[in-house]
Amino acid sequence: MGCRALLLLPVLSLGAATMIRPGLKTVGRLHLPTNPASDPAVAYNYSVLYFKQKVDHFGFSDSRTFKQRYLIADKHWQTNGGSILFYTGNEGDIVWFCNNTGFMWDVAEELKAMLVFAEHRYYGESLPFGEDSFKDSRHLNFLTSEQALADFAELIRHLKRTVPGAENQPVIALGGSYGGMLAAWFRMKYPHLVVGALAASAPIWQFENLVPCDVFMKIVTEDFRKSGPHCSESIRRSWGAINRLSRTDSGLQWLTKALHLCRPLTSEDISNLKDWISETWVNLAMVDYPYEANFLQPLPAWPITVVCQYLKNPNVSDTVLLQNIFKALNVYYNYSGQAQCLSISQTATPSLGSTGWSYQSCTEMVMPFCANGVDDMFESYVWDFERFSDDCFNQWGVKPRPNWITTLYGGKNISSHSNIIFSNGDLDPWSGGGVTKDITDTLVAINIPNGAHHLDLRASTAFDPSTVLISRLLEVKHMKKWIADFYKNAKL
Amino acid sequence: MGCRALLLLPVLSLGAATMIRPGLKTVGRLHLPTNPASDPAVAYNYSVLYFKQKVDHFGFSDSRTFKQRYLIADKHWQTNGGSILFYTGNEGDIVWFCNNTGFMWDVAEELKAMLVFAEHRYYGESLPFGEDSFKDSRHLNFLTSEQALADFAELIRHLKRTVPGAENQPVIALGGSYGGMLAAWFRMKYPHLVVGALAASAPIWQFENLVPCDVFMKIVTEDFRKSGPHCSESIRRSWGAINRLSRTDSGLQWLTKALHLCRPLTSEDISNLKDWISETWVNLAMVDYPYEANFLQPLPAWPITVVCQYLKNPNVSDTVLLQNIFKALNVYYNYSGQAQCLSISQTATPSLGSTGWSYQSCTEMVMPFCANGVDDMFESYVWDFERFSDDCFNQWGVKPRPNWITTLYGGKNISSHSNIIFSNGDLDPWSGGGVTKDITDTLVAINIPNGAHHLDLRASTAFDPSTVLISRLLEVKHMKKWIADFYKNAKL
Repeated sequence: MGCRALLLLPVLSLGAATMIRPGLKTVGRLHLPTNPASDPAVAYNYSVLYFKQKVDHFGFSDSRTFKQRYLIADKHWQTNGGSILFYTGNEGDIVWFCNNTGFMWDVAEELKAMLVFAEHRYYGESLPFGEDSFKDSRHLNFLTSEQALADFAELIRHLKRTVPGAENQPVIALGGSYGGMLAAWFRMKYPHLVVGALAASAPIWQFENLVPCDVFMKIVTEDFRKSGPHCSESIRRSWGAINRLSRTDSGLQWLTKALHLCRPLTSEDISNLKDWISETWVNLAMVDYPYEANFLQPLPAWPITVVCQYLKNPNVSDTVLLQNIFKALNVYYNYSGQAQCLSISQTATPSLGSTGWSYQSCTEMVMPFCANGVDDMFESYVWDFERFSDDCFNQWGVKPRPNWITTLYGGKNISSHSNIIFSNGDLDPWSGGGVTKDITDTLVAINIPNGAHHLDLRASTAFDPSTVLISRLLEVKHMKKWIADFYKNAKL
Repeated sequence: MGCRALLLLPVLSLGAATMIRPGLKTVGRLHLPTNPASDPAVAYNYSVLYFKQKVDHFGFSDSRTFKQRYLIADKHWQTNGGSILFYTGNEGDIVWFCNNTGFMWDVAEELKAMLVFAEHRYYGESLPFGEDSFKDSRHLNFLTSEQALADFAELIRHLKRTVPGAENQPVIALGGSYGGMLAAWFRMKYPHLVVGALAASAPIWQFENLVPCDVFMKIVTEDFRKSGPHCSESIRRSWGAINRLSRTDSGLQWLTKALHLCRPLTSEDISNLKDWISETWVNLAMVDYPYEANFLQPLPAWPITVVCQYLKNPNVSDTVLLQNIFKALNVYYNYSGQAQCLSISQTATPSLGSTGWSYQSCTEMVMPFCANGVDDMFESYVWDFERFSDDCFNQWGVKPRPNWITTLYGGKNISSHSNIIFSNGDLDPWSGGGVTKDITDTLVAINIPNGAHHLDLRASTAFDPSTVLISRLLEVKHMKKWIADFYKNAKL
């Protein structure tokens, strides 16, 4: 089952290793409806700018450049005693991250802050070679975290040189998910450019064997277990039901109809079907927010609780169980009531760059995952690096380098760094690869009970649990200290 | 005179921007005679090993590899409570650095240390593409400090994985000159791999405008001024004398003969001649050691004092002055008495890779130099970056990136790092671009009165001034503390 280890990995903000299903997740056509309660994009006012970057920061024979997009909002910025909050863009359209990082907008006034959102190369509009950017491994060669960090460094120096009043201001890096990893790594590698970093839901330890490979799926399972009686048990039973039903043509027809799929299932699709369902549960665990939101999909408040209402009884026939599974899936895929049918090739917003992330997970971002079907609700599969590597080579013509990230960024041995907040919600499966205990006085962990994937970075709402309110206050307190220390040292 | 700014830059351990004189310094044929008093190579016993490195650590489309050479000596190493001293090789043959870094050999027993000397890519035997390595900018593309640091990181992880007993030992980076810069940068960028760094004579601030561009030549001048009456004044006057004599053919012939040059001078050579003489004074300032030594050339103890014996009287005729200059040059070029004639295309040992360094100084290692002829004893020249850049492009097909090193490594803003010793001798012109004041409790400066270029890294001799003895004791004290802290933290 080693293959499955690749298939059903959590996509989304942290993407999945979807490389062995080239067709999957590349054609997402979901529309992102505006939901005023949770998507305050309409209120955010920023300038869109572009900065010329070297395609290759680490060599000199290639002198090509590209335009990196970035957004700036300076309504609350003060040149006297202010600060610069710098979002280290991750694998997606920077406008989407900008609109989903309300926290920065909420604290701008208090920190007299200029907001900058920098797009990650190979995502959104920041394509080094335009349409050819994903053409082959030669064009993709410059898609690495090191190049992205170098882009951020050059951009910050550019802003300091060119924006009057910015030169002598402290910069703080912020990011969520992979963007949180980048924020933390940026502070580690470029501490001269940022006084600190808020790394929200950043699984910087989801590499090598730093954490058990099954921790992720265990957390997903726990979220479902807690959200309704027998919920995770129903899901665990569903895989066998699918396997049994898919053995016959009539069973496949029944499944197609029961799950309201857009295309008839064939026996070859079953593996994909199970991956798609698994990813749906994973995604729900990531976005189990306490209010209606539209991050990956438009969803009700506490969506897993809603889902679990349909999954109370595992001890029913296969067909009844799968009818219940459909109702559960429908919460995720059809909360808006607009879907005519469900497509197993779509799980999330197309604002996320799944192609780029697939390449990244086949090169640097090698995250081992596994499940055993006993401690979690998924079909068991083992982490098989050899197979993973072969699949990556077949898809991208490159070999993953599974130890590079820890060689480069230190793995668990990061105590010599300072001024990084690692925040994690306990509902978020990515917290399993995150830093959830203080490492030193200045490398601190903030754990958010009842928090999903970087809930703290989202805009404040009336439905926020008190845990996230407290976390945000703490985060601001740390940031204020970094800023104050910066100005104190500047005076010396 | 902007061009001159390139021509006469200090070569040697830190190399010169020799790029606009392609023929120069590439054909050195000096033999390195064994001098038991100062070249204890015969006593050093090490194994020569090779490690397969990726040619490109920062991209995945190029899967080529090359063999990096490294030396290991473990005579005094103890697996119980020991340490690993790791020389971060710079621009030359690693055996040569190994034999000129007696300090590591001298302290090995006290620190129970394994010694590792890692060769820098593109130098010595560690050529990524063999004879083609310097063929063009495409082949040279992987010659950067980042790639070199990544080589060191991979090698350390390899040693920890494969050498029984090494895994749980503290590693300390050591290096001199550019190697000292690499040691410091290695600790900054990979603090998880080395507990500290001894950066000897490392001019990490000789970039951008971090220090005045004339500081280097001022220190050279001061060394000569202090080493004999009217010595620097005689040299300052010599340029005019050369200019006057070289106006006529008979003057050129006279100069050829008076300076015992191997080839007849033409008027086109005069600029090169002055550069060669300037570089000689610069080199002498770097290697003004208190004992007979053979680092760049076989030389007497305190060679500048010997040189200055011939330069006591600046108020003589041009011909007498230049006859004296010849005697002074002869100290440097013919201390062994073997030279038949002097060649203006040679200034130092061929163990230094001047071709590679020329490329590096045209890409990342852009060090602005200037002189004004008033506060120093050189002909005045200005730092002209545009011209420098054009010359680099003409020679290598690449454009220098003058701000990149400070963007990458922090310039003067490095206080968030820890455990780096910056040692500098006050005779060494490179101390002008070095860290000569403590930055924090753990980023410490050790200044060595009467010390030349990384004198502290050389083997202990009976002729060492007490200042360097004290410095070495201090360095060992710091290293011991880093090692003790490592073991203390490992127990927690």
